[in-house]
Amino acid sequence: MAQILTFLGKGGTGRTTVAIAAAKQLAASGSRTLLVSSDSSPAFGILLGLSPGAEPQEIAANLSAVQLQATVLLENSWEEVKKLEAKYLRSPTLKNVYGQELSVLPGMDGALALNAIREYNASGKYDAIVYDGTGDLQTLRVLGIPETASWYFRRFRQVFIESDLGKAIAPFIQPVSSAVLNVTWTADNFAPEPTNQATSMLEDGKAAIADPHRVLAYLVTTDDPSAIATAKYLWGSAQQINLSVGGVLLNQADTTAAITKEFAPLAVTSLPRKTADWQPLLDALPSFKPAAQIPKPVTIDLAARQVKIFLPGFDKKQVKLTQYGPEITVEAGNQRRNITLPPPLSGQPVKGAKFQDGYLIVSL
Amino acid sequence: MAQILTFLGKGGTGRTTVAIAAAKQLAASGSRTLLVSSDSSPAFGILLGLSPGAEPQEIAANLSAVQLQATVLLENSWEEVKKLEAKYLRSPTLKNVYGQELSVLPGMDGALALNAIREYNASGKYDAIVYDGTGDLQTLRVLGIPETASWYFRRFRQVFIESDLGKAIAPFIQPVSSAVLNVTWTADNFAPEPTNQATSMLEDGKAAIADPHRVLAYLVTTDDPSAIATAKYLWGSAQQINLSVGGVLLNQADTTAAITKEFAPLAVTSLPRKTADWQPLLDALPSFKPAAQIPKPVTIDLAARQVKIFLPGFDKKQVKLTQYGPEITVEAGNQRRNITLPPPLSGQPVKGAKFQDGYLIVSL
Repeated sequence: MAQILTFLGKGGTGRTTVAIAAAKQLAASGSRTLLVSSDSSPAFGILLGLSPGAEPQEIAANLSAVQLQATVLLENSWEEVKKLEAKYLRSPTLKNVYGQELSVLPGMDGALALNAIREYNASGKYDAIVYDGTGDLQTLRVLGIPETASWYFRRFRQVFIESDLGKAIAPFIQPVSSAVLNVTWTADNFAPEPTNQATSMLEDGKAAIADPHRVLAYLVTTDDPSAIATAKYLWGSAQQINLSVGGVLLNQADTTAAITKEFAPLAVTSLPRKTADWQPLLDALPSFKPAAQIPKPVTIDLAARQVKIFLPGFDKKQVKLTQYGPEITVEAGNQRRNITLPPPLSGQPVKGAKFQDGYLIVSL
Repeated sequence: MAQILTFLGKGGTGRTTVAIAAAKQLAASGSRTLLVSSDSSPAFGILLGLSPGAEPQEIAANLSAVQLQATVLLENSWEEVKKLEAKYLRSPTLKNVYGQELSVLPGMDGALALNAIREYNASGKYDAIVYDGTGDLQTLRVLGIPETASWYFRRFRQVFIESDLGKAIAPFIQPVSSAVLNVTWTADNFAPEPTNQATSMLEDGKAAIADPHRVLAYLVTTDDPSAIATAKYLWGSAQQINLSVGGVLLNQADTTAAITKEFAPLAVTSLPRKTADWQPLLDALPSFKPAAQIPKPVTIDLAARQVKIFLPGFDKKQVKLTQYGPEITVEAGNQRRNITLPPPLSGQPVKGAKFQDGYLIVSL
């Protein structure tokens, strides 16, 4: 399994340059590294010095690069969808639609990028994958897909099963499917256990994102106030998808006590401006190993019946806690997150909550 | 109906600053203006000098601002979905799912932003709406939703009707629906005419995007080579969704003959660096009226049986023409677009194609 690194920060702070430098540094240290760009514009090629294709290609010793093209990924995924349909349906309906005519809707770029990274990771060809995404909330939405999508599946399956509509339609499913499909639909399709392939893929994804040894983000900022504010906001937002932030890369500026304080307990590393020679920038980079002092996004204390949610970068009035559904919902940074609690706490009403030193502490 | 303006360009070129300046300038000239930011981070508030809320609020004479929050928009939209369901289903299933617990998946931000802009526009409260989106391909994906989504509906409805599965399921729809729904499903649900509300909403959206008097984009760039390359790429990419680009705003640099040539026939306007006083920047802005020399994204010559597709910023090998489905498909700039041709040309095989002076010319 590869270590996956990604960089978050305001546009124009040099995020892509830092991602390229990180990939070069990892490759130089002997890791088989893949640099993945989600930006299909020519800017990535200009910064890298060459334009990689839509499939990974080796550009230096230990270093491969790919510039993702949603159109190409969609074409490949469509073939997989058609194969699946052909496998389960006696009379496939999608065979007359071609991947080559499918256009790209919002959200597809992200989902296709995540799937591509999953496949690169599973290929066993790489020790490190550097993902240069959009670096903003959208990158967090993409990395949050496993968590969010599995919540949607879980929640709506339950609602559907319990509904009158679900009960009314249930008897029709068997006759229709046995007439048309060559598989037998069983209760397993509605089973709460993560039995099918899609669910286990989402569970794998959730486990990877939550493990700082597998997926780790770094904040990139300059000393510009709006860049610092954005980096802090993304730091907090990353916690909402269980993504650990390993440190801060302060680009083209010297570390000050004020900046160090803004991001404590994260280490702040000052980076020089990139010149024709990449080496000084590479030498300034940190090791990209998760440090022990990084707080966990969520800590559950069963004995104290307390849930501690780390939300740096937000103040009290930006954080909202609700309990409408079966889980507790935390809203912060334009994200909403449902936290599944272990059995003794799950389904319990919230007794109290306070926001203190960047932590939301919930008592159940 | 409001004029909708948006700005495209590489991150860090000052796109948001230019959008704010444009909104201030339009308000000063007497237009009731709404500034819409899709960036929920604090950077927008820092640049604007105050943090607007998730609902439009007046911040100066003639000027309102809103910072879109997908979580809030999703909550509101969910209430609409539940109302629709309650209207058509005797026994609604979704009433037990609360908007307050829904988390945001990739693509939702964009779709919700587009819907919000549609509603602001329909409210009649504004003469101008300045949409500060992500400014990259994602903004084009969002503005391309009406075109892309209507293609998907059209294409898959047809495939479904013609399929064995569609024919097999058809007899089941009536009994199920009359048992459960309080409406009668008619053939109209599958009718090719844009009869229902969703389809007409998409058609309205397509018409708006294609009309430079209703929706107009400007490119923002500095004189940095990667910013210029990105702006050119986005210029071409905008054509793929039928969006007209009105001109180039060259930020913090003087216009040169080389830059003017890169973007001909668009006018290039040089903008000064923003200082504490916004006025010099406001004074330097163009009028934001669509100029007559802007080429149309697509021109169809029925007599010559030719389709001319304007694709500036791409070279020949970046443009691909295919005809797998019922329409001709143009692939360029990580976008795929199906062009619907009028009756005498629709369904005809492509006889020839050439790429010349930024135009793809297709003979049928």
